[in-house]
Amino acid sequence: MSAIDEVLRANEAYAKAFTLGSLPKPPARKLAVVACMDARLSVEQCLGLKTGDAHIIRNAGGVVTEDVLRSLLISHYVLGTQEFAIVNHTDCGMLSFTEEELRTRLEKSTGVSAVVPAYFYSFRDIEENVRRQIQRLRSHAWIPSEITLRGFVYEVESGRLREVVPELARRVG
Amino acid sequence: MSAIDEVLRANEAYAKAFTLGSLPKPPARKLAVVACMDARLSVEQCLGLKTGDAHIIRNAGGVVTEDVLRSLLISHYVLGTQEFAIVNHTDCGMLSFTEEELRTRLEKSTGVSAVVPAYFYSFRDIEENVRRQIQRLRSHAWIPSEITLRGFVYEVESGRLREVVPELARRVG
Repeated sequence: MSAIDEVLRANEAYAKAFTLGSLPKPPARKLAVVACMDARLSVEQCLGLKTGDAHIIRNAGGVVTEDVLRSLLISHYVLGTQEFAIVNHTDCGMLSFTEEELRTRLEKSTGVSAVVPAYFYSFRDIEENVRRQIQRLRSHAWIPSEITLRGFVYEVESGRLREVVPELARRVG
Repeated sequence: MSAIDEVLRANEAYAKAFTLGSLPKPPARKLAVVACMDARLSVEQCLGLKTGDAHIIRNAGGVVTEDVLRSLLISHYVLGTQEFAIVNHTDCGMLSFTEEELRTRLEKSTGVSAVVPAYFYSFRDIEENVRRQIQRLRSHAWIPSEITLRGFVYEVESGRLREVVPELARRVG
């Protein structure tokens, strides 16, 4: 059986026991989480989030791309979230290749040179990467300064989140 | 207490009981899911996915943007997934505004006209939107034709997933 058929079977059981059909659209905890797509990071479980609590935005790396910015703007301005958490993690797949390597591999594998995606956002230092994502948000004119922005590294080995100290605080303290 | 502080407290309990520190990086079920960020859609629970099973990619709308394409290419070529599921849902916030309305609102609220994000991807018909996302993937030269691509609407009222029939199959059958 295909993975998607298995998922549909599991959903039948979920729907039979479902009692949350009247939750409001805005997230109850006014929180948006930006996290990596990694299969080992069960965001809701590891953050203790229940259905209806928070927006969860995920991509390869937990990177603040234009699409994540778009999603966070909708999250805040349309649905009222006030805190954003960025979650990267140890042993990330994005540490395992360079832009040039992956692009060359795709071109050789398919025989086609594509324009989109323009960039894969691989990186080498996970804490530095988290800091960069926060700076990207902080510097955007449409992200209000009163939004709480905090960044974390999730350790896939221990299940633990550790906070990444912003560059400025690290220098001062 | 802030939502993020609450989340950190919940994570302490999660980490104490954590036993999954040796899971491999590639998703066990070779599945990637693209879903909306909506708080009412607990993707792992509603699809019966356990930690380590699947890549979960989420943004506002469950839209195949350049960033989602990027993530899926990494998912397949770097980490071996073979099936992609697109999940949109009823009562989506993306049905509640137009591009022009939201852009004007942000410009008035902040006094700044920004270039990025270029587009917010609001839509009017949820099934049509799911079909469009599948077509976007199907037509990209770097998405292999042997990848299984299926699209769904999640009903936030019932907890049930229903499959969206592709345009071609609908016309023929």
